[in-house]
Amino acid sequence: MSRSRIVAMGGGHGLSASLQALRHISDDITAIVTVADDGGSSGRLREEFDILPPGDLRMALAALCEDTAWGHQWSAVLQHRFRGDGELSGHALGNLLITALWDILPQQQVRGLDLVGRLLNARGRVLPMSLIPLDIEATVLVPGPDGEQRVMVRGQSQVAVHPGKVEAIRLLPESPPATPEALESIKLADVVVLGPGSWFTSVMPHLLVPDLVQALRDTPAVRVLTLNVSLNDEEAYGYTVAEHVAAIAAHAPDLTFDHVIADPQVARSESERAALRAAVQQVGGTLTVTPVGKMRQRGVHDPLRLAAAYRDVIVGEQP
Amino acid sequence: MSRSRIVAMGGGHGLSASLQALRHISDDITAIVTVADDGGSSGRLREEFDILPPGDLRMALAALCEDTAWGHQWSAVLQHRFRGDGELSGHALGNLLITALWDILPQQQVRGLDLVGRLLNARGRVLPMSLIPLDIEATVLVPGPDGEQRVMVRGQSQVAVHPGKVEAIRLLPESPPATPEALESIKLADVVVLGPGSWFTSVMPHLLVPDLVQALRDTPAVRVLTLNVSLNDEEAYGYTVAEHVAAIAAHAPDLTFDHVIADPQVARSESERAALRAAVQQVGGTLTVTPVGKMRQRGVHDPLRLAAAYRDVIVGEQP
Repeated sequence: MSRSRIVAMGGGHGLSASLQALRHISDDITAIVTVADDGGSSGRLREEFDILPPGDLRMALAALCEDTAWGHQWSAVLQHRFRGDGELSGHALGNLLITALWDILPQQQVRGLDLVGRLLNARGRVLPMSLIPLDIEATVLVPGPDGEQRVMVRGQSQVAVHPGKVEAIRLLPESPPATPEALESIKLADVVVLGPGSWFTSVMPHLLVPDLVQALRDTPAVRVLTLNVSLNDEEAYGYTVAEHVAAIAAHAPDLTFDHVIADPQVARSESERAALRAAVQQVGGTLTVTPVGKMRQRGVHDPLRLAAAYRDVIVGEQP
Repeated sequence: MSRSRIVAMGGGHGLSASLQALRHISDDITAIVTVADDGGSSGRLREEFDILPPGDLRMALAALCEDTAWGHQWSAVLQHRFRGDGELSGHALGNLLITALWDILPQQQVRGLDLVGRLLNARGRVLPMSLIPLDIEATVLVPGPDGEQRVMVRGQSQVAVHPGKVEAIRLLPESPPATPEALESIKLADVVVLGPGSWFTSVMPHLLVPDLVQALRDTPAVRVLTLNVSLNDEEAYGYTVAEHVAAIAAHAPDLTFDHVIADPQVARSESERAALRAAVQQVGGTLTVTPVGKMRQRGVHDPLRLAAAYRDVIVGEQP
């Protein structure tokens, strides 16, 4: 176990996989989480209580639960969604726990999350990227009978499933302030990891918070960009893996990465591989291509393989 | 700390106070809890999910949380009720946690509660008195212009506040089966405590479960009846302390108690004290009158004073 201070940025299942991997190589982990979800349980809680959407924060906390029977049980309970069609239906218990702490400690989102972390004995800290609930707006190119049309799509839940190719995203309100504790953690980190995850709705939103981008530029930490193992989700429809990297460069022009981790499955042909190498060169980093996906479940990171890849690029391959 | 196996029966705030007291004298505590609540958060969850009302079970779990900063925080979080007027408003977080475990483990109420206890590192076991959600029906004597009228009142939440004097209560369905683990715990107990609590809706329901009464008669355990420190709640309106004891005898004729604990405040005059002594003699026990209430909050048991009273009757006064 290294003593590296690691910051992982993203949201949803991708961040969860990254955290599960990073736990194998460090015991000092901070997650910085997108807060733009507007669908499902998070959307309802956000509306009912005027709070940050708790869903991505909950997933990160569940990923950081202790690696014991007790921790695994807590993780499962946090992730459990109520059945049926009543007023609780669809709510994840962990979302309600976070909401309860924010209800007990109004306007103290970080303190509330820290307390939830202590109650769960979580192995790391979970921070929202901003203390303001955000919305995502995307320009989407939709093929039609008269050629492509530009459509504005608003709301993370809509952007994630809208047909067409996302051209650009914006946050509403624009240029929101970053959470101070998140900036501090980036400043003090040895390693910062961005991705994997839904590219436009979980990974890129961080690059639309100016203070976060500035902190990423300024930090002495090793910067790692982790690409997805599946390119076929609706949200990043039409994007090659090289274009995933290029989208990062387009949204945060002066930001460089030391390492970019990719699974061989996402760039199988020599031309795809060459395009990926060129895109990675543009963001200044070294490309590491190594299997990081699950064998039996396509499109999902395997925490142990991803841990090995992180260890290789962060602390060097072990003899 | 004695190694006595102690079973505490009741519900609501009274059982919670009893459990907080008993924790000072034993580390082997089982709570057996009424499951007839039909109001508030419990009533809504009972209706939405067709489950046992979780509220009294939650209060018992909160009372058994660890005596550490961590345990106190969990206890406060379990008891927290959501604010506002949305779909979560009024729900206690602990009720939702219990409901989530029952949603994960359908038809396994005891296993679900045991798991909640483990997740919270609770210092004891919490069991429902029956695995069937129950209702309370009361015959209430209501004074009217033409003399007293007998009124049937249904539902714990209604009985608790209905004006008039409760004459008798019944459970619906009648004579429900007891939870097997509850019967086993009574059989193996060194001490069984009934009360304090809302007399007709939290304490007496146990005596309307035939298997529980039989187990109470058969157990070799020391039987303790703890009377309330306040007689003035709406629910037991019009009852003297002696009549509280007599109501127990009336609902479970062959059940005896070894000790009855009363606060001096509830029988201040010599005639009240004599009536109480006579009623206690009827249930076969020794009356212990000792201050067990809080100094500054009338009508509420003080856990440490109650602990001292329990210790005196259970393990004998310490030198």
